[in-house]
Amino acid sequence: MTVKERLEALRKLMEEKNIDVYVVPTADFHQSEYVGEHFKARKFITGFSGSAGTAVITKTEARLWTDGRYFIQAAKQLEGTTVELMKMGEPGVPELTAYIKDVLKEGETLGFDGRVVSVGEGQEYANIAAKKGASVNYHEDLIDAIWSDRPALSEEPAFDLDVKYAGETVESKLTRIREKMKEAGANTHVMTTLDDICWTMNIRGNDIDFFPMVLTYAIVTMDAVELYIDERKLDDALKAKLAADGVNFHPYNDIYEDVKKFDESAVVMVDPGKLNYAIFNNIPENVATVEERNPAILMKAIKNPVEIENIRKAQIKDSVAHVRFMKWLKENVGKMKITEMSASDKLDEFRAEMGGFIRPSFEPISSFGEHAAIVHYTSSPETDVELKEGALYLTDTGAGFYEGSTDVTRTYALGEIPQIMKDHFTLVAISNLQLGNAKFLEGSSGMVLDILARKPFWDRDINFNHGTGHGVGYLLNIHEGPAGFRWKYRPGETEPLAAGMILTDEPGIYIEGSHGIRLENELLTTKGTLNEYGQFMYFEAITLVPMDLDAINPDMMTSEEKQLLNNYHAKVYEVIAPYLNEEEKVWLEKYTRAI
Amino acid sequence: MTVKERLEALRKLMEEKNIDVYVVPTADFHQSEYVGEHFKARKFITGFSGSAGTAVITKTEARLWTDGRYFIQAAKQLEGTTVELMKMGEPGVPELTAYIKDVLKEGETLGFDGRVVSVGEGQEYANIAAKKGASVNYHEDLIDAIWSDRPALSEEPAFDLDVKYAGETVESKLTRIREKMKEAGANTHVMTTLDDICWTMNIRGNDIDFFPMVLTYAIVTMDAVELYIDERKLDDALKAKLAADGVNFHPYNDIYEDVKKFDESAVVMVDPGKLNYAIFNNIPENVATVEERNPAILMKAIKNPVEIENIRKAQIKDSVAHVRFMKWLKENVGKMKITEMSASDKLDEFRAEMGGFIRPSFEPISSFGEHAAIVHYTSSPETDVELKEGALYLTDTGAGFYEGSTDVTRTYALGEIPQIMKDHFTLVAISNLQLGNAKFLEGSSGMVLDILARKPFWDRDINFNHGTGHGVGYLLNIHEGPAGFRWKYRPGETEPLAAGMILTDEPGIYIEGSHGIRLENELLTTKGTLNEYGQFMYFEAITLVPMDLDAINPDMMTSEEKQLLNNYHAKVYEVIAPYLNEEEKVWLEKYTRAI
Repeated sequence: MTVKERLEALRKLMEEKNIDVYVVPTADFHQSEYVGEHFKARKFITGFSGSAGTAVITKTEARLWTDGRYFIQAAKQLEGTTVELMKMGEPGVPELTAYIKDVLKEGETLGFDGRVVSVGEGQEYANIAAKKGASVNYHEDLIDAIWSDRPALSEEPAFDLDVKYAGETVESKLTRIREKMKEAGANTHVMTTLDDICWTMNIRGNDIDFFPMVLTYAIVTMDAVELYIDERKLDDALKAKLAADGVNFHPYNDIYEDVKKFDESAVVMVDPGKLNYAIFNNIPENVATVEERNPAILMKAIKNPVEIENIRKAQIKDSVAHVRFMKWLKENVGKMKITEMSASDKLDEFRAEMGGFIRPSFEPISSFGEHAAIVHYTSSPETDVELKEGALYLTDTGAGFYEGSTDVTRTYALGEIPQIMKDHFTLVAISNLQLGNAKFLEGSSGMVLDILARKPFWDRDINFNHGTGHGVGYLLNIHEGPAGFRWKYRPGETEPLAAGMILTDEPGIYIEGSHGIRLENELLTTKGTLNEYGQFMYFEAITLVPMDLDAINPDMMTSEEKQLLNNYHAKVYEVIAPYLNEEEKVWLEKYTRAI
Repeated sequence: MTVKERLEALRKLMEEKNIDVYVVPTADFHQSEYVGEHFKARKFITGFSGSAGTAVITKTEARLWTDGRYFIQAAKQLEGTTVELMKMGEPGVPELTAYIKDVLKEGETLGFDGRVVSVGEGQEYANIAAKKGASVNYHEDLIDAIWSDRPALSEEPAFDLDVKYAGETVESKLTRIREKMKEAGANTHVMTTLDDICWTMNIRGNDIDFFPMVLTYAIVTMDAVELYIDERKLDDALKAKLAADGVNFHPYNDIYEDVKKFDESAVVMVDPGKLNYAIFNNIPENVATVEERNPAILMKAIKNPVEIENIRKAQIKDSVAHVRFMKWLKENVGKMKITEMSASDKLDEFRAEMGGFIRPSFEPISSFGEHAAIVHYTSSPETDVELKEGALYLTDTGAGFYEGSTDVTRTYALGEIPQIMKDHFTLVAISNLQLGNAKFLEGSSGMVLDILARKPFWDRDINFNHGTGHGVGYLLNIHEGPAGFRWKYRPGETEPLAAGMILTDEPGIYIEGSHGIRLENELLTTKGTLNEYGQFMYFEAITLVPMDLDAINPDMMTSEEKQLLNNYHAKVYEVIAPYLNEEEKVWLEKYTRAI
């Protein structure tokens, strides 16, 4: 079926069910960023394959909202589908909710599947409908009815993440969560976000794309955990281990009925941004609820000493692989056939050689030339091109090691490149280094620091249309709240930076039809001087891969900025060289030389 | 009566009224920053005269919370009073609410005067009490009963601010406010903040300290304005003018009874941060309320073209006065007796010579030597010292002209000063210039930009313990929301910067017992380049007073920073010189020379 035919079938169903406006977000039942194949309803109905976007279908229109990372990709994929692209944040583009307000008429019905919508979103939709004299139907998964070959729910096994990797026992985590529940006056905590549950339970799995997590829901009470999970995923050892921590097992879908059984003795702590609307609405009205952020969110963002030690190991593995890849690429481009996809595979080969490599930690971006201007480009057999000299190649990929997940972006000059590309590369390097060099008082959020990365851009009347950085989960979500580098307010990313948080620093520049450059390091937030002014903080760059000196224009850099680059490169050589053979060392010395 | 005796009398009264914990904020019935003499209850009961602070009195303790501007001053004034200073934001210092939570016991009563507490504060207190099983009594102004010589409410006349100064008619302002009421689904808007009412009504007065405002409440409906005001303040012409805009007059205190008469046909728009708790609680429970920020807050922060034109004139007047003052000071210090208070008077003399000078726009700070380390120092006959060579003198003052209010800080080297003072001065100048030089995308809040001013400090492990800047009202509050430069989140100061907003840029450094330096310019937010990345914005410094080159260490500045200073000084000379005589011009040329 073409997208047009799918839309036709959907509209027929909407008519049967008396639904006038139907919303299809990119989500599973757990507000996951990447979703399993079963949940790719928005991709099915629009044809757009990016990881973020929401479709709204009316009787006459179909529109897709997505963010700046996907403007170019979405425009291409929506061609000929009748689905109109709505570029979020661009001048004159209405917000999704404003559009719904506009098209939804009195007496009509707004429909969505309440399981794939957060409480906050669902309530917003309900409010819009109420104001317009319209009604809401959140019980219909209309896509399911027309998606004949819909993939089944994943049945992959879960595994135990040993405490030597997790650094904290389930018992200890539950104790801390229950303390927070007590503080909030609650005795029951409904968790539906997979990363929060997997972190709390020290389990991982293979049920959604890229992030090694398990489809599950959990209800934490003061003395037990009710875990909703397909029990076939758990082997006996893991079941016994979890049972010892007070876990009872229930079929995956039973939570929808079980929350209906809460009585007045329950005070339920819920996070409206992290719970799905259907579950929330199934909680009886006479049961008290307390709105609080999931305690696990901040706890897991602050990495413990064992995790930090492991992550350093993972970063070194990944950096060694990158150095070998960079050398291989520089030495072989133009001599053998290298394509976007084969280059990406080669990098993963180097990673696998390091040992303990589980899987890529997110959908790899391997983009040559003008493809790199598409921020979240995914190479496919149809688009896969050969890497050639005279242009830039961008790799934004990550590895899931048992010692943690990585997220690294480098852009490499292949052969001699035009001056404008060098100037842009240098600009991005300056931006990355300036943010990485931040010193700040404890209590600062990423919003306070973001301009350190933007200033070199804004001073030149340019910008990059994405956040500057995000928290990184430990074999969990690659984009992990509650902190991030962002100049615009976004709920859930405003937490002050705390020692132990790991965030990416990834400015970029994107020239449509020509080139794209991004440089991404992971930064470990660290305590510095404590004095009468307070606790000062700084970052340690734990990604240790050269920034390609073939693409640097030293004349654009102040002496302070050159010093920052030289200091970084000295550290790269110091830490990485011991893992290399003599020939590789000589090569790395050249690419980490002081300028 | 000493403070100790007052506290004793208060505690006796608390016992009679069965109040166990009593809160005395710094406020009138309108959440004003400065209050009239009648309202200085917190000063009466603690002896601390700063403009910000809240006292909590229990049977055995008395504590005062105030912010970093006042730590030194409060410590001095509280000596011997038994009132304990609580330094807000310092490590280990409990927040006021945490303290109340701690001391308030089950069955006890928390008391405060509900008229001098905002809805938000009052509800927070009520929540604390509820959680502790305690009760609240918000009907008692206990201070009134023991303050035998309490000043009466002000009876000063109001005056009309002509549209040639205000730039927009009352009719137009009311139309815009009613549009916002309609958008919010409300038909009644209760305003109690004096600046919002004075801005809307184009009136000014003389009822509170420094800010030229009138004690009044207003209820805006879709076709009338009920104004609660002592009618003796209004002359016939002003009454007629207001009546023509649909204004009905009522005695000042009648609002407390009138809001009780709201019926179910009213949908009342209230701003919990801007309304007092007593009025809010007097609105009957069956009347619908809509929580929205007062529409006037954002409207008045965005200055209209007439206001901007006027403000430029006011700034030039003030800058000419400053230049003359600086010349006079440099030429006469050590030759004649100049004290903090006489210097401040002299500056106002120069201002008065410029014409249209109504009054100082806030409590002047005129501080020599170590006094300048007290951020909001107020010179008094007891502390007034003579200005001498070899040290720094700081003046942070402002003028209310009909053409608008100013707020300017300069620090001057008197004679030759030690190198450390020059280095600190240069640091503050760099900080001021870097923020003033910001370029940013529309949508940025002051929190995004604040680090431009802090970076020179934070890079050296130092900080200044106050916001970097605030909005400035037009003959209204000198600290005007909803935007500001601040690295820590503060509600009501998070609005993105919009063209037409005027904010101060005032970093400083404070070395207790030695010296204090602050340099403050007002910045006009201005639209810059509009391109595919969005609308870029920049600031224009509209304060045009030299930064004392006698205190600059050029070796600490990058060439870019020197250029910023030179550009600023060139503009100072260009704009101000035409108002000066030849001798003054020659002097100014020297003090605005390129370095």
